[in-house]
Amino acid sequence: MTSHVYVLNGPNLNMLGVREPEVYGTETLDDLRVRTEKAAAKNGLSIDFRQSNIEGEIVSWVQEARGKAKGIIINAGGYTHTSVAILDALQAVSLPVIEVHLSNIFRRDQFRQHSYISLAATGVICGLGAKGYELAIEAMANIVNKSTSKA
Amino acid sequence: MTSHVYVLNGPNLNMLGVREPEVYGTETLDDLRVRTEKAAAKNGLSIDFRQSNIEGEIVSWVQEARGKAKGIIINAGGYTHTSVAILDALQAVSLPVIEVHLSNIFRRDQFRQHSYISLAATGVICGLGAKGYELAIEAMANIVNKSTSKA
Amino acid sequence: MTSHVYVLNGPNLNMLGVREPEVYGTETLDDLRVRTEKAAAKNGLSIDFRQSNIEGEIVSWVQEARGKAKGIIINAGGYTHTSVAILDALQAVSLPVIEVHLSNIFRRDQFRQHSYISLAATGVICGLGAKGYELAIEAMANIVNKSTSKA
Amino acid sequence: MTSHVYVLNGPNLNMLGVREPEVYGTETLDDLRVRTEKAAAKNGLSIDFRQSNIEGEIVSWVQEARGKAKGIIINAGGYTHTSVAILDALQAVSLPVIEVHLSNIFRRDQFRQHSYISLAATGVICGLGAKGYELAIEAMANIVNKSTSKA
Amino acid sequence: MTSHVYVLNGPNLNMLGVREPEVYGTETLDDLRVRTEKAAAKNGLSIDFRQSNIEGEIVSWVQEARGKAKGIIINAGGYTHTSVAILDALQAVSLPVIEVHLSNIFRRDQFRQHSYISLAATGVICGLGAKGYELAIEAMANIVNKSTSKA
Amino acid sequence: MTSHVYVLNGPNLNMLGVREPEVYGTETLDDLRVRTEKAAAKNGLSIDFRQSNIEGEIVSWVQEARGKAKGIIINAGGYTHTSVAILDALQAVSLPVIEVHLSNIFRRDQFRQHSYISLAATGVICGLGAKGYELAIEAMANIVNKSTSKA
Amino acid sequence: MTSHVYVLNGPNLNMLGVREPEVYGTETLDDLRVRTEKAAAKNGLSIDFRQSNIEGEIVSWVQEARGKAKGIIINAGGYTHTSVAILDALQAVSLPVIEVHLSNIFRRDQFRQHSYISLAATGVICGLGAKGYELAIEAMANIVNKSTSKA
Amino acid sequence: MTSHVYVLNGPNLNMLGVREPEVYGTETLDDLRVRTEKAAAKNGLSIDFRQSNIEGEIVSWVQEARGKAKGIIINAGGYTHTSVAILDALQAVSLPVIEVHLSNIFRRDQFRQHSYISLAATGVICGLGAKGYELAIEAMANIVNKSTSKA
Amino acid sequence: MTSHVYVLNGPNLNMLGVREPEVYGTETLDDLRVRTEKAAAKNGLSIDFRQSNIEGEIVSWVQEARGKAKGIIINAGGYTHTSVAILDALQAVSLPVIEVHLSNIFRRDQFRQHSYISLAATGVICGLGAKGYELAIEAMANIVNKSTSKA
Amino acid sequence: MTSHVYVLNGPNLNMLGVREPEVYGTETLDDLRVRTEKAAAKNGLSIDFRQSNIEGEIVSWVQEARGKAKGIIINAGGYTHTSVAILDALQAVSLPVIEVHLSNIFRRDQFRQHSYISLAATGVICGLGAKGYELAIEAMANIVNKSTSKA
Amino acid sequence: MTSHVYVLNGPNLNMLGVREPEVYGTETLDDLRVRTEKAAAKNGLSIDFRQSNIEGEIVSWVQEARGKAKGIIINAGGYTHTSVAILDALQAVSLPVIEVHLSNIFRRDQFRQHSYISLAATGVICGLGAKGYELAIEAMANIVNKSTSKA
Amino acid sequence: MTSHVYVLNGPNLNMLGVREPEVYGTETLDDLRVRTEKAAAKNGLSIDFRQSNIEGEIVSWVQEARGKAKGIIINAGGYTHTSVAILDALQAVSLPVIEVHLSNIFRRDQFRQHSYISLAATGVICGLGAKGYELAIEAMANIVNKSTSKA
Repeated sequence: MTSHVYVLNGPNLNMLGVREPEVYGTETLDDLRVRTEKAAAKNGLSIDFRQSNIEGEIVSWVQEARGKAKGIIINAGGYTHTSVAILDALQAVSLPVIEVHLSNIFRRDQFRQHSYISLAATGVICGLGAKGYELAIEAMANIVNKSTSKA
Repeated sequence: MTSHVYVLNGPNLNMLGVREPEVYGTETLDDLRVRTEKAAAKNGLSIDFRQSNIEGEIVSWVQEARGKAKGIIINAGGYTHTSVAILDALQAVSLPVIEVHLSNIFRRDQFRQHSYISLAATGVICGLGAKGYELAIEAMANIVNKSTSKA
Repeated sequence: MTSHVYVLNGPNLNMLGVREPEVYGTETLDDLRVRTEKAAAKNGLSIDFRQSNIEGEIVSWVQEARGKAKGIIINAGGYTHTSVAILDALQAVSLPVIEVHLSNIFRRDQFRQHSYISLAATGVICGLGAKGYELAIEAMANIVNKSTSKA
Repeated sequence: MTSHVYVLNGPNLNMLGVREPEVYGTETLDDLRVRTEKAAAKNGLSIDFRQSNIEGEIVSWVQEARGKAKGIIINAGGYTHTSVAILDALQAVSLPVIEVHLSNIFRRDQFRQHSYISLAATGVICGLGAKGYELAIEAMANIVNKSTSKA
Repeated sequence: MTSHVYVLNGPNLNMLGVREPEVYGTETLDDLRVRTEKAAAKNGLSIDFRQSNIEGEIVSWVQEARGKAKGIIINAGGYTHTSVAILDALQAVSLPVIEVHLSNIFRRDQFRQHSYISLAATGVICGLGAKGYELAIEAMANIVNKSTSKA
Repeated sequence: MTSHVYVLNGPNLNMLGVREPEVYGTETLDDLRVRTEKAAAKNGLSIDFRQSNIEGEIVSWVQEARGKAKGIIINAGGYTHTSVAILDALQAVSLPVIEVHLSNIFRRDQFRQHSYISLAATGVICGLGAKGYELAIEAMANIVNKSTSKA
Repeated sequence: MTSHVYVLNGPNLNMLGVREPEVYGTETLDDLRVRTEKAAAKNGLSIDFRQSNIEGEIVSWVQEARGKAKGIIINAGGYTHTSVAILDALQAVSLPVIEVHLSNIFRRDQFRQHSYISLAATGVICGLGAKGYELAIEAMANIVNKSTSKA
Repeated sequence: MTSHVYVLNGPNLNMLGVREPEVYGTETLDDLRVRTEKAAAKNGLSIDFRQSNIEGEIVSWVQEARGKAKGIIINAGGYTHTSVAILDALQAVSLPVIEVHLSNIFRRDQFRQHSYISLAATGVICGLGAKGYELAIEAMANIVNKSTSKA
Repeated sequence: MTSHVYVLNGPNLNMLGVREPEVYGTETLDDLRVRTEKAAAKNGLSIDFRQSNIEGEIVSWVQEARGKAKGIIINAGGYTHTSVAILDALQAVSLPVIEVHLSNIFRRDQFRQHSYISLAATGVICGLGAKGYELAIEAMANIVNKSTSKA
Repeated sequence: MTSHVYVLNGPNLNMLGVREPEVYGTETLDDLRVRTEKAAAKNGLSIDFRQSNIEGEIVSWVQEARGKAKGIIINAGGYTHTSVAILDALQAVSLPVIEVHLSNIFRRDQFRQHSYISLAATGVICGLGAKGYELAIEAMANIVNKSTSKA
Repeated sequence: MTSHVYVLNGPNLNMLGVREPEVYGTETLDDLRVRTEKAAAKNGLSIDFRQSNIEGEIVSWVQEARGKAKGIIINAGGYTHTSVAILDALQAVSLPVIEVHLSNIFRRDQFRQHSYISLAATGVICGLGAKGYELAIEAMANIVNKSTSKA
Repeated sequence: MTSHVYVLNGPNLNMLGVREPEVYGTETLDDLRVRTEKAAAKNGLSIDFRQSNIEGEIVSWVQEARGKAKGIIINAGGYTHTSVAILDALQAVSLPVIEVHLSNIFRRDQFRQHSYISLAATGVICGLGAKGYELAIEAMANIVNKSTSKA
């Protein structure tokens, strides 16, 4: 039986392929969704792939994941560095969380080097572009299967 | 005549009873609403008890309070530590404000020890759990009645 | 042919004329819109003048400006000091940006002296009240015409 | 049976009614004692209400509370911001502690915004003037009764 | 009757057109003077346009403006970030002050992001090149006329 | 009629003549008292010259000065750098305060360069040894006489 | 043809299975080598898997990788947070670098949250235990193959 | 002939055996005195073992030690981190000083990691519990005998 | 025989009586000169009383004082907080230096609380208005006479 | 049966007797070894006394101690302040650790006042010269014997 | 053909041989000029050797160097640490710059360890006394000849 | 008779000619050795030119220099910014030390702007490429000869 996972994308990720392509590549968010769905299928997971520019909506999705999903993969975009509210939501739902970033945030502006999301994340993957989403799926499958097989 | 007060709750407070019960207790937000309404009735106040995960919605509620309410009791959750916008709204409406937190934020993470809300608050009550909401109602009644009786 | 420009206003700017009039003056947001539209007409620009309390909505408007407008004038209110998400959106759309503030933010609270918006702005105008919006229009016309006449 | 509570006041609180009345009000420390005793009686508590300008004396009173009282309400005045010794004493006696301040310390000088007392406090109430002492009594009664009824 | 305004330029602005043209453009200080004089004439102002590399000379000019001018437009160059003496002079003369910078100082070196001049300025305009001087004239005319018409 | 002034000395000043004579000189506290009394007499003041090692005792003396004295001269010794309680007392009594230090505290350890006392002081005199006490008397006489002659 | 990759492990990684198993798991370094070799084989890579406690030896290995390998996977252990020398070596060899950590370093001590290695890394993977090494291999294969297929 | 040494204990050390026994052990202050006296006798020293909660009293005891003792062993408790006055006293008396702490203060709260006492101490011993007092006696005997035998 | 002393005044002190009279009083610089000369005469000193807005000119005057004067009284105005060059000059001439400020700089802006001059000053007098100059003369006479009488 | 203890010395301790004798004394490392061995014998311990200038070698010795020794006494020299790798090793082996320094590091350069070793140490002894090694042996014997006698 | 180089000296360097000879030596500025001229002649350079106490004059000399000289050697004295204006001038003229200091500024006061000049300098030489000027000439000749021979 | 000097090179300097040639040039370490030997011969010095990637080995070489050499020229590479151990070694041997860097470290990353080596260096030369080594030889010869001729 496939386990379900939420893949949540924050502000401006809908601009993928448009925004600073030298940093983020030319692939669009829809390309990324397809690629992530394929990786999920290959790893025995089904996913809910969403994007929002609104911090509070992401908070609500994280809350919703509780009961509906086995884990959360999240690229919180600009909210990564400023949102205590998303951090609180992630801590409240007690699910495995994998944080993803397309670029290596540690080589960019000083204020992009701190992540509130990391404080609630099991693992972090960054700087590996779209490939990072596939690896996150694989890592999540590994975590979910372990705990599932225990049950 | 009863005075009206807004009781505004920020992100993740809808998770009460679920999120980290060792920190926040097992009472739900609805339990909290009932308890606060009772305290209000006892102190001659009526209340509007709301919750939102969206920062901008809380800003709008604060603005709306102007003209409709005699005071604001606010637990801004994670936005406590990051929202200049809510601070600005509170300063704009010129109403008495009481800030409430269920836990003692000064004994938690470093970044939870600074509150933008405090800069606009008349008083602050924290660490007293659901009881803190009752005390906030009592304090607000005390403030509102003073200014009302003067008029 | 007139060029189109987005004029975006952040949280609490709908309170203009109400909020701390000794800081922000008695003119309302609607007065400001009219005044800005007149200045735009005089400088051969048409404008889209909007206000929102929601950070994510401003992010979306900035994204929308791409393709629809030649430039963005923005007064991000309280989000000026906290929003990496709006900064990211402004950097993504690659349009000229002029940041406006009614008051001189450098003479106010310490936390109001840092602006994320400035990192993506071509120019900044602050402390000149409603007149600052007219000057921003004039500056934007100057920028837009230069690049238009080149084409 | 009434439970006993220590209400300890730090340096300069004996100047109440004299010192900066625009910040602290015109009520004297004796007025405050009477008011607090009434609130205590109403909540089934008896109190020991004391004031000292000497840090070490407050330390000794806190130690003394162990065995003699069920809880401590403390307004440590200027020692709030500097006394590790009082913090140590509060941590040593393992009683519920409610910290009170007449003014909202978060809107005053930078150095008044950090409290050592908070690190040992169950709850904090500030900015509500003399009313804050009454609320502290009520909160303490709530805590004491809970643990008493359990026993 | 035209009002008189001092337009003061600090160190290295005499190098305009020479120094880092990719940052400051190819226009010389003399070009800038002509352009500013035209804008002044158009706005009913006469100006005194000066440049000095010596901090103390700028201090003296600011002092001299008292009694001789209705306002000061100042681009203090490198002294912007280091001169308490010019700040003191500006505060002493009690005239409206508009601070101008050709480049957006907030996108440059860290030490260029703090301005002592801003602490005495009515408004700030930066990042708009030579156009910024014209806008400063226009804003100054607006301020001067208001206060003149009141008299 | 002579005005009365309190001259308060903090911890370790009773060690004068003993402690690090290369920094503080060989004069004892009693020598200093005599010298200060002479200066007082010459300037039409009478003084109360005291020393204590106990912070709370100094707090009490400052409070006591209210009603009994026209001004306070204070060398708070080591409490200069740590005592919010003495600062609060000085602010509460609303008397002119002159802070004195025998050595130039700005040329010593980093932690000796901040003074809480200065925040409540009319003036500060330091680095002038015992002579500094005489000058403080003279300055206090100047202040007291001005306000007395007004009355 | 298989590409060759260096997998370098820093100080104390030879203690795997021994050191704080609640943080790092019970797998030994040899187990980790076998697992990584399998993943490499599956992704068409061969690897050189080494460990050293000596910073300078790791510097030398990184230098040696130039010409012998197509990429470097590195878990620099405690040197992650202190070694400018390893950073310099990584920048000198101009190979793709993937940084791995078994635990999520962002949830540990403050001083473990800064990585010099990240400044030279293409991507970072942390908090995913031994699985993180497999993902690093997969990501490296992805990078190496892209550049190989271009040639 | 036995040399005399002051052993001074600061605030809350009278709570030994009561306060956080998992940190400080179950031995009382009196047990500690006996143990220290025995060690002193064994090392040819006699001691004066005192405790006070009052900072100024400790200052006075340090001053008194001059002339009466050959050295000072001090555990200043909470005043370790805040008392410039005790530091000044220790520097004034010019005796060898050994600072003792029962727990390893460097593994506790950030604010417990700075000691003013250390700036005047010959040596520091911490984290070794009651044994630390015995070692301090032994070290002091070593210092005192050296300087005595020289005389 | 009278000793000669330089009394040097920095930028904007020529604005005395004009600049922020609520801070600096209504006395002009010339009034201050006369008053200081009288105090000098009374204390057996002659003075050279100068003012400059130019940092380098003050540096030169300090250098010139060497050989011509027995001491320097200096109010460096805004350069107090920024001039390493004046500090270097003061250290080079090896004369007694008394730093004076009309206002208590420790109660003003943060950046006015650090003085480079203090690092070379024998003593500092501030917050005592024009009277401070008289006291500085008296203190300087005391210093000069001591060293003269020794010769 | 004697218990075995590692006594590890870091960089430059082989220079003892040579390097800054006014700080470290004239005793050589070999003298220190002899003295420490004697103390060990007296306390029923045998020791392995080593020195290395190479950080990684010290890491390896710490690891080696596991299984071979009952405790570690360490003076990590300059690595005290920079080595996360040695800290990690000490935490990995789970043995009692006593940190020793010949000088009082808290009275030296700012950067010598932080120790990574302390974070893993049971106790710290500093400023007592070669005597400190003897005390460390005594303290270690005390710890080892306690846990041995329990077994 | 000899190339021309400006050798500019900042405030207080005219005091050489007078000021703190234990730091700066007994050679005068004129001795230094002669020595530098000799080194220049030997390296095929002619020099313009100047000194000023006025920051703005040094700014003007740097500007003047453009067109008249092939390089600038500068010892900005106290302005090294405070002058953005000189930095701006150096960046504007685009000539090779060698910064010289007689003493090793990194071993002196904290505020002397930052240099604005370094941000525009090709190379820095410090701590080598007058010899440093000769080496700077030699280094400048090396740079100038390279670029000349290329032309 | 020629004096002997150690020329020590730290990590990654063996990569010269390979690593970031746009920063460090194309000359190899061996080229640099030859060039430095020639300069040494010309200045009457013989040299020992070494390179190591291992911090502890450099520490040992510095120690070894004592007795074998008259001075040390050192380019500690990445250890410049992190090694207290090399600093300690340099301070222990009491020889003249000249620190060299090929690039101007003050114009690079923030963490490259602090040097521990500088705290023990007589002089510092940076940003002058390979020429800097020649100048260091010349400066060292100058220092060595002075002290030799005195003997």
